[in-house]
Amino acid sequence: MGCPGYRFAVLHCGLKKGDQLDLALIVSEKPAVAAAVFTTNKFPAAPVIYGRRQLAVAMPISAVLVNSGNANACTGDQGVADVKQLAKELSSVLSVPEEQIFISSTGVIGEPLPVDMIAASLPRFPDLLSASGLPAAATAIMTTDSQSKTCSVSLQLSTGVVHLCGFAKGAGMIEPNMATMLAYLLTDAAIDCSRLQEILKRVVDKTFNRISVDGDTSTNDTVLLLANGVSGCSLACDADAKVFEAGLYQVADELSRMIVKDGEGATKMVEILVKNAPDRQAAEKISRTIAHSLLVKTAFYGEDANWGRIIAALGYAGVDLDPGRVDIWLDRIQVVADGQRCPDYREADGARVFRQDSFTITIDLHAGDGSFSLLTTDLSHEYVSINADYRT
Amino acid sequence: MGCPGYRFAVLHCGLKKGDQLDLALIVSEKPAVAAAVFTTNKFPAAPVIYGRRQLAVAMPISAVLVNSGNANACTGDQGVADVKQLAKELSSVLSVPEEQIFISSTGVIGEPLPVDMIAASLPRFPDLLSASGLPAAATAIMTTDSQSKTCSVSLQLSTGVVHLCGFAKGAGMIEPNMATMLAYLLTDAAIDCSRLQEILKRVVDKTFNRISVDGDTSTNDTVLLLANGVSGCSLACDADAKVFEAGLYQVADELSRMIVKDGEGATKMVEILVKNAPDRQAAEKISRTIAHSLLVKTAFYGEDANWGRIIAALGYAGVDLDPGRVDIWLDRIQVVADGQRCPDYREADGARVFRQDSFTITIDLHAGDGSFSLLTTDLSHEYVSINADYRT
Repeated sequence: MGCPGYRFAVLHCGLKKGDQLDLALIVSEKPAVAAAVFTTNKFPAAPVIYGRRQLAVAMPISAVLVNSGNANACTGDQGVADVKQLAKELSSVLSVPEEQIFISSTGVIGEPLPVDMIAASLPRFPDLLSASGLPAAATAIMTTDSQSKTCSVSLQLSTGVVHLCGFAKGAGMIEPNMATMLAYLLTDAAIDCSRLQEILKRVVDKTFNRISVDGDTSTNDTVLLLANGVSGCSLACDADAKVFEAGLYQVADELSRMIVKDGEGATKMVEILVKNAPDRQAAEKISRTIAHSLLVKTAFYGEDANWGRIIAALGYAGVDLDPGRVDIWLDRIQVVADGQRCPDYREADGARVFRQDSFTITIDLHAGDGSFSLLTTDLSHEYVSINADYRT
Repeated sequence: MGCPGYRFAVLHCGLKKGDQLDLALIVSEKPAVAAAVFTTNKFPAAPVIYGRRQLAVAMPISAVLVNSGNANACTGDQGVADVKQLAKELSSVLSVPEEQIFISSTGVIGEPLPVDMIAASLPRFPDLLSASGLPAAATAIMTTDSQSKTCSVSLQLSTGVVHLCGFAKGAGMIEPNMATMLAYLLTDAAIDCSRLQEILKRVVDKTFNRISVDGDTSTNDTVLLLANGVSGCSLACDADAKVFEAGLYQVADELSRMIVKDGEGATKMVEILVKNAPDRQAAEKISRTIAHSLLVKTAFYGEDANWGRIIAALGYAGVDLDPGRVDIWLDRIQVVADGQRCPDYREADGARVFRQDSFTITIDLHAGDGSFSLLTTDLSHEYVSINADYRT
């Protein structure tokens, strides 16, 4: 697990209790072309503000430092100054330009970042760097995650073989548009900056932006894609671009599914597919409303095929629809036809679907050609325990 | 507890298990002027469809039949025909015109209403009617409620004394715009129909529509206000109208607070007050987003004054705002000033606020004069238990 031209290191600097890893470093042997997608939250954390400025000027990235345990969010100008100071300190340790250092943070909001504590640990990094350190890095960025999340593929382009690997964290506060989720995608392909950004945006829209655990969008979240070109292989033709984008989709899709499966306290993974809505926006609104309904989520948890709750959520989603044309399926079992219970639907069939670890709810509005699919989880006792006790 | 000119009766017809009460009847000795507010859900239940038609033609109401245990929702044309048949059967039992009978249902969605079972019990009602039966009626309409909800006041108008009493049910699926909530408000004042509707709408907007347990809006919910005029006292002047509206507000406010306090598994009642937003809509959007955040609700439950979660929810509410101008208070403790943690905020102070059964979170945007206040609850283990096991 890894990617040519990238090395990784992790350590414990003291942000987390005990001796838990709380710092991860990625170093690219050549400055890498970078693309990123950031949170849409109106309170972007300091590293997001700082990172956006780097990406806005197409800054190549040579190193990525990620800390867990403190989000450096709602920390004002001092928070941004803290990011800058960390970049400066790491710059001298690694001998790379300060502006080529990308920084992410995840953890508690509103506490000042203990910069001196982190800076004091940075000189230990150079001796720890290793090409095989990606799994450890995936572990060091975890917060409430129960397991680390990594994925890699090799791709055959017309110009040769390139590699693509990624790791991510996130288990709660997971929602569209980048919730407390961090993902780092690394390739040795040679790709120019604007193309890299286009591809990343398309892939994120179909993967990380289609998962939802609790509907909470965080202040920090970031998907960063680096392409250092050490393979010497570029996207020489349209076919290469397609292969690369498909590979990136595969890695991003796998990582985002891992995040949903690891959703705080989740016992089920449920796809909400809305078809034939007036338009895509309407389909998305409905799927998110259903996915966020506490009554629907607790019914998943209770393995109770209470489709009335799905109907109720559909009805308050704020989308104009004709109730008399709505069909609903639980996997391949049709439960609602034309807005009413199917005459031949039997509770036992629905119950069998809901007892599975993973299933799909399909809502067909027969009102247009808009569709949207969202992956979500149930709401369990464990979710409440994790989030009622997070800081204690 | 009661109101001159109204009698009540309850019985068990078999919709609920064991011998639990599942039918309630209100009879007015004179046809009463009626006003109502119904759910905004796109899948209105059959009795809501039927009731809207009655109210649209200013039909006076002589009797109200409420069943619990079955919502008669998503039951199509048959569901509406079932309501009509029940009205007809009850009409002959009570000797009042069929069209003056108002019907409500609450319970499981999507099951056909067992009309024959209900109809068979109706002839038992006349012998059971009593002026003091309101508390029993409040009990018979309960579903997951842990206690019945009643309230009454007497009002001195220029024309004499009038009475106002009400009862309600609702504990989950509680959200703006009429969630699984039923409320019946009865007065012996003499008030014309359009005025009654105006007053009811204004009062509901400030009371029942400002509470939220889980953000789920139901298919059935209804607030019905009857004025039978048996006191002979009308609203003769503006001062009378004010006294009546204030009294109605008091009853509706009390009942809606009872619903929040009885929120499924709720251990806290929290007011989310958003001030100085660009406009009222923005303030409402923010207060609802915060009230619905699972992370905020679990922090209430965990008595963890994790204000970062409030900030995060504020940031994804979809309202344009300047993060650097936001202030947040927990009761009278200021925790955020100008978008950052207050220098003199101490965790212990926030923790003290969160340990109370009831407190207020105030968010000041300093961006206009829009404000909105919402009453909500925490999210507890008990909520998950209640809703995972509702039908089993």
